[in-house]
Amino acid sequence: MAEYIAPLKEIRFAQEMAGIDEVLALPAFKELELTKDDVYAMQEAAATFANEVVSPINVVGDVEGHKWGADFASDGRPGVKANPKFTDAYKKFCEQGFNSVVGDIEFGGLGQPIVVATGLNEMWKAANHAFSLCPMLTNGAIEALTIAASNEIKEMYLPKMISGEWTGTMNLTEPNAGSDLAAIVSKAEPRGDGTWNVFGEKIFITWGDHDMTDNVIHLVLARTPGSPAGVKGISLFVVPKYWVEKDGTLTDQRNDAYCIKMEHKLGIHASPTAVMKFGENGGARGYMVGEENRGVEYMFIMMNEARFNVGLEGLGDAERAYQRARDYAKDRIQGPELGVKGGPKVAIIKHPDIRRLLMSMRSRIEAMRATAYVCAAQQDLAKKSDNPEVKAKARAFADLLVPIVKGWSTESAIDIASMGIQCHGGMGFIEETGAAQHMRDARITAIYEGTTAIQANDLIGRKTAREGGSTMKTCIAEMRADAAKLDGDLACYGAALNKAIDAVEKCVGFFIDNFKGKPKEVHAGAVPFLFLFGITVGGWQLGRQALVARQKVAAGDTDPFWKAKLCTVRFFGAHSLTQAEGLRDAILSEGVGALCMDDDSF
Amino acid sequence: MAEYIAPLKEIRFAQEMAGIDEVLALPAFKELELTKDDVYAMQEAAATFANEVVSPINVVGDVEGHKWGADFASDGRPGVKANPKFTDAYKKFCEQGFNSVVGDIEFGGLGQPIVVATGLNEMWKAANHAFSLCPMLTNGAIEALTIAASNEIKEMYLPKMISGEWTGTMNLTEPNAGSDLAAIVSKAEPRGDGTWNVFGEKIFITWGDHDMTDNVIHLVLARTPGSPAGVKGISLFVVPKYWVEKDGTLTDQRNDAYCIKMEHKLGIHASPTAVMKFGENGGARGYMVGEENRGVEYMFIMMNEARFNVGLEGLGDAERAYQRARDYAKDRIQGPELGVKGGPKVAIIKHPDIRRLLMSMRSRIEAMRATAYVCAAQQDLAKKSDNPEVKAKARAFADLLVPIVKGWSTESAIDIASMGIQCHGGMGFIEETGAAQHMRDARITAIYEGTTAIQANDLIGRKTAREGGSTMKTCIAEMRADAAKLDGDLACYGAALNKAIDAVEKCVGFFIDNFKGKPKEVHAGAVPFLFLFGITVGGWQLGRQALVARQKVAAGDTDPFWKAKLCTVRFFGAHSLTQAEGLRDAILSEGVGALCMDDDSF
Repeated sequence: MAEYIAPLKEIRFAQEMAGIDEVLALPAFKELELTKDDVYAMQEAAATFANEVVSPINVVGDVEGHKWGADFASDGRPGVKANPKFTDAYKKFCEQGFNSVVGDIEFGGLGQPIVVATGLNEMWKAANHAFSLCPMLTNGAIEALTIAASNEIKEMYLPKMISGEWTGTMNLTEPNAGSDLAAIVSKAEPRGDGTWNVFGEKIFITWGDHDMTDNVIHLVLARTPGSPAGVKGISLFVVPKYWVEKDGTLTDQRNDAYCIKMEHKLGIHASPTAVMKFGENGGARGYMVGEENRGVEYMFIMMNEARFNVGLEGLGDAERAYQRARDYAKDRIQGPELGVKGGPKVAIIKHPDIRRLLMSMRSRIEAMRATAYVCAAQQDLAKKSDNPEVKAKARAFADLLVPIVKGWSTESAIDIASMGIQCHGGMGFIEETGAAQHMRDARITAIYEGTTAIQANDLIGRKTAREGGSTMKTCIAEMRADAAKLDGDLACYGAALNKAIDAVEKCVGFFIDNFKGKPKEVHAGAVPFLFLFGITVGGWQLGRQALVARQKVAAGDTDPFWKAKLCTVRFFGAHSLTQAEGLRDAILSEGVGALCMDDDSF
Repeated sequence: MAEYIAPLKEIRFAQEMAGIDEVLALPAFKELELTKDDVYAMQEAAATFANEVVSPINVVGDVEGHKWGADFASDGRPGVKANPKFTDAYKKFCEQGFNSVVGDIEFGGLGQPIVVATGLNEMWKAANHAFSLCPMLTNGAIEALTIAASNEIKEMYLPKMISGEWTGTMNLTEPNAGSDLAAIVSKAEPRGDGTWNVFGEKIFITWGDHDMTDNVIHLVLARTPGSPAGVKGISLFVVPKYWVEKDGTLTDQRNDAYCIKMEHKLGIHASPTAVMKFGENGGARGYMVGEENRGVEYMFIMMNEARFNVGLEGLGDAERAYQRARDYAKDRIQGPELGVKGGPKVAIIKHPDIRRLLMSMRSRIEAMRATAYVCAAQQDLAKKSDNPEVKAKARAFADLLVPIVKGWSTESAIDIASMGIQCHGGMGFIEETGAAQHMRDARITAIYEGTTAIQANDLIGRKTAREGGSTMKTCIAEMRADAAKLDGDLACYGAALNKAIDAVEKCVGFFIDNFKGKPKEVHAGAVPFLFLFGITVGGWQLGRQALVARQKVAAGDTDPFWKAKLCTVRFFGAHSLTQAEGLRDAILSEGVGALCMDDDSF
């Protein structure tokens, strides 16, 4: 059975190309005396842990899932029992400090750059998507508290959340408030002692309840009395499963926050997805985080990082699917080699369409990875640079890339995982093989933390049209400058990249000109544009990688890594960049057919 | 919960456009005094049965599946118990004659045209993919026996198989012989009494064992002693579960053919997929069908029809996914309408990206359907025309279309079903919603009865390059002639179609010129070409439909069906036909990157 092997070399190369040196040279990280050797040593330790501890429980998690019911009750209410193998692995994970990588040093974290954490996160996600969600949600909650909470609250919660002794959840969605957070109806009432009673039902709460740790810290969006309608009347609350004293001591006072249902999902079976009920018995007690009515704003500050991390899940699922398909293709003997009539039977990796499938998977994975690590490094610069100009530019660029890391990588991952099944032939459809799980798991990534359409609307709206396309134009100029370097034996690739950049530019102009006048026509092209931009940026980053690879080969470096890189990039040029003009035409069609259709005729 | 409603109007229109009148006018059908009114009345009855009997047990079949084990043993060996709701429905299905639609009149069938049966088959598949597989496999076995068996064998088996009292299976695949049938090792030895003992293991046997009927008739490929190596040394045997006397009487002699394992699959849970063992206890007794060593040849004669029917499964799964997503989109209220700030919340079908998703699903479904029914009618002409020229042309054309009905429709169906999930947001990932099942079910269609690569190799090889592209060229000429009619307000669509036809023509030239000289380069483009050809033929057929729709509207026909058709076709032009040139470039890249990669570097 194929197991996951972390692609350390690809990860390191992506980090180098993303500018890890520049990040580590920032004063904030220089202070930590963090060298690249340290980073790579930690990455290797993480790879071993991912390969040996996290990955081997992936299938058992999928098959057995977790349990929920009266058998696991505390306080007479049904509870969740995580898969025991997950509980063991999670303890080891925390002991090794993997939960604390980015957390503030002040509260026990390692304070490492995002481009470093990304190297680890990619591995957790690829090794075991369901497992990785628990630390991811905890780190999201840590980030929200770090951004918005008072020092008092930080001191109460952050140390144990950063160590992983307590996990965190994000409670946004309600039955009638999914993509539309303005529709949230959960309420909070002051108790008069500085704390609040929270009431409401929240759905799709990842790792919303479990027994892996002593406490679960819920961050909950709710409305205070008299707050304005819409998103500007929503506040953020921290509501622990068991009450925490001001000095951080855990009590045995069970809070009025219960999982009332577990969802039966297509994938990520070992990750308990809870329907949470707050305040059925008088109120779930919590503190307000930050200022009243600014809850959605705080969520949106951390949302970019959460979305980025879901993009990494797409990358992880895709990588895992690729590795499994490749291993099968090398192992499975079927038919003679094409053109060798009566020849011996060969491994199916010799067959052209299997190679096409694998290269389609691989080339997109490498483009997704390259883009994700660039986005990670830009997030570090945006957060930690002491040069305001660098900071602002990096923030804008990171924000521009997040929708494609999230939207494009996840949609691609579904397709890549499906191709992974296809490489297996009939065996791919048999659950025992393991290929199907990756498609089932990947399917959620294009939905949670904002569907692909939400990402695409963000990309063409807030991040393009509303600022007159200024960041986009800078990005286009940088892409053109790099494309110009793709000469000689990369000229064909450079030409394909330039065509894609032209297509992006044309569509950006269309969006800017028509955003107000033809909002529906513009938004009908949002997702196709997200794909177009993803392909183009991914192609740009692969082009940059190809330039290095060519240089290495020319300098006599015989590492097959470089030749493979050039093959992969060329395949991407022929199979992905070539889609750009078709997408452009679809976008510029202004929703033809879709907008004119009567609702009743659908 | 959304239930299936058979799209009778679309089906009828597709039948009209495919030339059902010409088919019914063939002497073979005139003899039956079959009118179009009869056909449509039968279709309506079938629609009612699909909507009311077959569709409602779809979810329960997915959730409960079937059972296998010692509890359901006969003769001390574990057996399969089909889902009891399926057993009930199957009995009614046969009582109403739906199993007998195409079977020979001589043996109790209705002898109806394929274009008529297709109308029914589409419904069964959409209503309940897992259920539909049982009659589909039986009809495949009926077809094989009809083609190849002696009258004696036909009389023994066909009447009860056509009535549905006995079901049939196809036993081709072995653990080491999947796409490569030449690797089959199952054996048959003469018993000296005119019958044979069959030995071997067969995998992925759909409805390979069950208790819905008194007998299961296995068709098995196996090698006779001294037979030549390769596909020309394989013979076909009919091996019943319970022995059948020469006069057709069923005995209680259990044959040595047992299900030894049931597969746990991603989808089609209610369809038992068996590992079959023949001859573990001395030999599974059977008759040879047709002549020795011609088994694969017989299989290939019926294979086109089997593949065509799997293509219909793609269509069915896609239609079902579309209906569910559309119903949800009309029902689900979320967010205000775009451009109406502070306006009331609306059904999500008002949002541009939901419309884009639905139209992407719908437009491809209509293209797939149009193509499938044309292929069906051509099969009828090929079988039953008394004009040898018409017959030959129709055979060639039907054969050309089968790979895209199978390959393109099924790959599209996976994507369409995935889009159906996306329309549901978070609810799409919850199994209870039902959307996920369609993706799980659809996933197999691109694999069984020949993977997409097998279809694509057949398309560019046997059906294009080996005949110098003559059928393909005729097809291109016909497409051009129809594209020329797309003028005026359809000129933009006509131009997109012409570009796609150009792309097809260019690639066909490349294949013909290089099929022998560069087999790997050519085959690396086979699947992309299958997609390109599928889009182009689908676009052609939609173009033909648009011409009729335009005429109807111009003539004052106010049926919204025609306006919807025009919207759908235009969307297809903007979003599907525009992919043609990108696919062309990928094909003409001659496998760049994929072929030069070292195996070890993957």
